[in-house]
Amino acid sequence: MRRTGLSAFPFPLLLAALLLTGAGCAVREADAPLMLPAQDAGAYHGLPGDALLMGPEVQGVAWSDFLARHFDPWERTRPEYPADKVFWGLAAFADKPVYGENLRPRGPAWLDAMAEASKAAGYPSLNRRAIAVANTAMRVLPTEKPAFGDPGQAGEGFPFDYLQNSLVLAGTPLYASHESADRAWVLVESRFAYGWVRRADIAWVDDDFAKTFRTGAYAALVREGVSLADTDGVFRFKGFIGTLLPVAESVKSTEDGGLTVMVPARDVLGRAVVRYAHVAPGDALPAPLAPTPDNFAMLADRMLGEPYGWGGLYTDRDCSATVMDLMAAFGVFLPRNSSQQARLGWVEPLDGESDAAKKARLLEEGVPFLTLVRKPGHIMLYIGSKDGEPVVLQTIWGLKTRQSGVEGRRVIGRTVISTLEPGANLRHLARPEGVLLHTVRSFNTLP
Amino acid sequence: MRRTGLSAFPFPLLLAALLLTGAGCAVREADAPLMLPAQDAGAYHGLPGDALLMGPEVQGVAWSDFLARHFDPWERTRPEYPADKVFWGLAAFADKPVYGENLRPRGPAWLDAMAEASKAAGYPSLNRRAIAVANTAMRVLPTEKPAFGDPGQAGEGFPFDYLQNSLVLAGTPLYASHESADRAWVLVESRFAYGWVRRADIAWVDDDFAKTFRTGAYAALVREGVSLADTDGVFRFKGFIGTLLPVAESVKSTEDGGLTVMVPARDVLGRAVVRYAHVAPGDALPAPLAPTPDNFAMLADRMLGEPYGWGGLYTDRDCSATVMDLMAAFGVFLPRNSSQQARLGWVEPLDGESDAAKKARLLEEGVPFLTLVRKPGHIMLYIGSKDGEPVVLQTIWGLKTRQSGVEGRRVIGRTVISTLEPGANLRHLARPEGVLLHTVRSFNTLP
Repeated sequence: MRRTGLSAFPFPLLLAALLLTGAGCAVREADAPLMLPAQDAGAYHGLPGDALLMGPEVQGVAWSDFLARHFDPWERTRPEYPADKVFWGLAAFADKPVYGENLRPRGPAWLDAMAEASKAAGYPSLNRRAIAVANTAMRVLPTEKPAFGDPGQAGEGFPFDYLQNSLVLAGTPLYASHESADRAWVLVESRFAYGWVRRADIAWVDDDFAKTFRTGAYAALVREGVSLADTDGVFRFKGFIGTLLPVAESVKSTEDGGLTVMVPARDVLGRAVVRYAHVAPGDALPAPLAPTPDNFAMLADRMLGEPYGWGGLYTDRDCSATVMDLMAAFGVFLPRNSSQQARLGWVEPLDGESDAAKKARLLEEGVPFLTLVRKPGHIMLYIGSKDGEPVVLQTIWGLKTRQSGVEGRRVIGRTVISTLEPGANLRHLARPEGVLLHTVRSFNTLP
Repeated sequence: MRRTGLSAFPFPLLLAALLLTGAGCAVREADAPLMLPAQDAGAYHGLPGDALLMGPEVQGVAWSDFLARHFDPWERTRPEYPADKVFWGLAAFADKPVYGENLRPRGPAWLDAMAEASKAAGYPSLNRRAIAVANTAMRVLPTEKPAFGDPGQAGEGFPFDYLQNSLVLAGTPLYASHESADRAWVLVESRFAYGWVRRADIAWVDDDFAKTFRTGAYAALVREGVSLADTDGVFRFKGFIGTLLPVAESVKSTEDGGLTVMVPARDVLGRAVVRYAHVAPGDALPAPLAPTPDNFAMLADRMLGEPYGWGGLYTDRDCSATVMDLMAAFGVFLPRNSSQQARLGWVEPLDGESDAAKKARLLEEGVPFLTLVRKPGHIMLYIGSKDGEPVVLQTIWGLKTRQSGVEGRRVIGRTVISTLEPGANLRHLARPEGVLLHTVRSFNTLP
């Protein structure tokens, strides 16, 4: 199936992912068996480093599609998502016990307060264009405070805040549909997800800004945590792999070979204004990048070892953010939700296949760096093979364990390169469901 | 001893408090024995509700002192604190294992990166006046990412992020001494503590702003989470008990009896500009409030039940923030650190006293709402008595328990009214150290 079923991104976005996740206090064993010795994304594809994994025409179509989706929030005159979608949290937590930042149960008064803050009956109330001027959290409800599952259960408690939907990178075009009763939160729609963001982290976009900011030429940040200060020396925000910014048309390159990009800023009345920032050579490249193994591996290697960030907490990435941000640099659109990601491109269902058959099919049909491997609540990127075993790059919380009947987690907690059977040698790995391969359901090749 | 020993606020600020704290998964028992049935701060003092607990002259001196300290960061031409104080975290975590947001140990590379980001050798590099334009976290190191103790230990792990120093309320005058290598963080000094804050949450203050903003008349927010929008309808920030803002001189009161206050905002170049906001009657009062039991109880009651917030996480309060914010409304200065708080005013040491003698002395000499009760790492506010037992208001994480030799915590996790022996009937309370009274070392009466 190709690019269907995307009429609405499915939220509850991250709940399913809890199947895989878990809190700390895990078994302490050497990391070695959990990942491959060579944490080097270029070591497994077996192709010429400069081979084009997508043809120019295919990539061109993907990039057009990406840009249309990226800026689509500025084309809207009304919200794309109805109230029952955007306020799903109010219903979802009505009969699900959640715990607060003090690890005590939240009572019904909390949900009442959230309902009042959400003003669902008045939706939509804003209908304005906006842009993120900071890297900011997208929340399920208009609050920065968390809602955890039972902290006493494996795979619950910190960091699994059910209210954390996604990170929104600075520079992301937004459609602002609604605001909270206290006005501190704005409900927005983006290319990849919707939810509440802090009012202070966005700015209103008018026609002039929207026109100026769509230069047609864009730069992809290709390094993590690039500090962006404007030409007046004012710090704006940090850029990450996944950040896309317009290249300033008049000054596309600078003397040192870097790029001058537009960065959105917020004026004193909350309106977006264009500022300019210089990006050093090697920190950004014209987007989309050439889809070569070398380029994919360069970016992937910069993500390796970074800590897992549930729903983008602390500007870290979870499984789906890693593939979304990586693909963005190559102009390939992915939504934020892993099960939606798994429906794009050429999908190969694997239901009912043996583990051996799954591996064989992946090795035969997978394209390194373009094939996603899916199990419920988790997504991985196929990057080649080692000794006849498929190799994936993934951002993973941990592996399910069982010891004297008690479920636990062997925490990995970062972006790693592994086989599809990491931890297979662990004594307490929950078998069979703790073996990733066992629950792999499909793979899909982008774009 | 009166107002001595304050030449430098002692940091590591919150480490000692870990003695009292602990992570979730605690025994589930009814809350009733942990707190008094009447969660009503006015029910225990036994005084006329309008009695003045401080004489006007005493309060006047306290308020002058408070304002001098509040604005002192704008009087500085160089930092008050030397490099070994402000960069204490770099030394403290060198030989203390800490855990990241993925609950895995942070390695030496992390501390190296923090040292590089801190640029200690270049300290001080800024020397500017600033102001908080948002409620923002003050951090020990220039990062929003946490450093936990061993999550497997009682009293460690979430929410006890060692890097979380304090909340800085919007409107707080700051002295900005230094910036991080990535420019995203600024090292600031405030009335009550120092540390790193997000660049985006402060604005530079020039002479005009500083002069305009010191109107001489100030309003204290007396309700939690007051939404402050300016006269152009732009949302600025939320106010809390503890927030102080200048009353606009020309328009001290509005038709409905509310107040018009100045709110700091940030222009596109990062400079502070004055905006005006209307506060509804009952949300703010001219500061300092009359020091009556009724006024103290009104504010205290609005804090009751609020969740515990380690170092001000999620804009919640911990033990010392509660007393600091409450006292601020009455014009009484307190630093952020509980052991420093316990050295102010008239101090009564209790070392070597029996539990019965401690109670008797507190009942005899304590002044409801002005006497702080201290144990190592914790501070409580004496508010009267019940059946011959001293009664305190406190924001407390939990009580130490021991079961089969394993230490745990009975989580309370909020602001409550209790005796000095909450949980004395708990079967697994760690005895004697789990009984608060047992480790009470002194009390001190403000101002």
